[in-house]
Amino acid sequence: MRPIGVIHSPFTDTNQMPIQSSTSEAIGQVEVYPEFDDGLQDIDEFSHLHLLYVFHCSSGYVLHVKPFLDDHPRGVFATRHPCRPNPIGLSVVRLIERNGNVLEVEGVDMLDGTPLLDIKPYVPDFDIRLDVRTGWYAKRSIK
Amino acid sequence: MRPIGVIHSPFTDTNQMPIQSSTSEAIGQVEVYPEFDDGLQDIDEFSHLHLLYVFHCSSGYVLHVKPFLDDHPRGVFATRHPCRPNPIGLSVVRLIERNGNVLEVEGVDMLDGTPLLDIKPYVPDFDIRLDVRTGWYAKRSIK
Repeated sequence: MRPIGVIHSPFTDTNQMPIQSSTSEAIGQVEVYPEFDDGLQDIDEFSHLHLLYVFHCSSGYVLHVKPFLDDHPRGVFATRHPCRPNPIGLSVVRLIERNGNVLEVEGVDMLDGTPLLDIKPYVPDFDIRLDVRTGWYAKRSIK
Repeated sequence: MRPIGVIHSPFTDTNQMPIQSSTSEAIGQVEVYPEFDDGLQDIDEFSHLHLLYVFHCSSGYVLHVKPFLDDHPRGVFATRHPCRPNPIGLSVVRLIERNGNVLEVEGVDMLDGTPLLDIKPYVPDFDIRLDVRTGWYAKRSIK
């Protein structure tokens, strides 16, 4: 695994950051390194994208962690906390426009300078599930 | 990055496989290695999980690829094709039950023996987007 680009965001400090991309209106730039930019063909026809990236400022991992939205420790795989054995982040952002190898997006919730691992189109047929139970989160909903 | 477990599925050949987890009713077992199983606490309260894993049978990558559902080559980042610069797969599965360090799940769409990188809870508030445009896929919908 090696970065295919870098995400530019307004956030330089974890204290400033939105909890999830779904609550963020922040604008960012997803810069794809030139050697990979041919892979962006057709992407501007999609309105929303999954970004996979490295939580590059998390140091090590824990198996029990207190989520930002809760006050009890939970198993890390029952949370979206950054301190994970493989520190991969997943966010859905809205694509505003493509300018060559740079994607202007809305809804960033990661730190400036975050290493980008992958971009996948968001497809409701693949990505939406209904009748979902959400455990501890159901009592802490941010919406 | 190193595997935190392995996914057992009925699929030993890419030709047999469902195109996405959303079209799969196949049952699989997500085995988390014992050193990480404390991280599964609380997970059985969630009905659906994101699995992040390695496309371990893809060899190398291409920047233009013909998606399984289309007959024109597209930029790889506008597809979910496995031959990506960082071969990370993303699927949503339904959790049936947890048995210690093994999660019984429905909706597997990966090969038997797939290395597991991460598990995240699926949370509609974070993961569902409406008013979505889906480019080439809109004409090839599998639903």
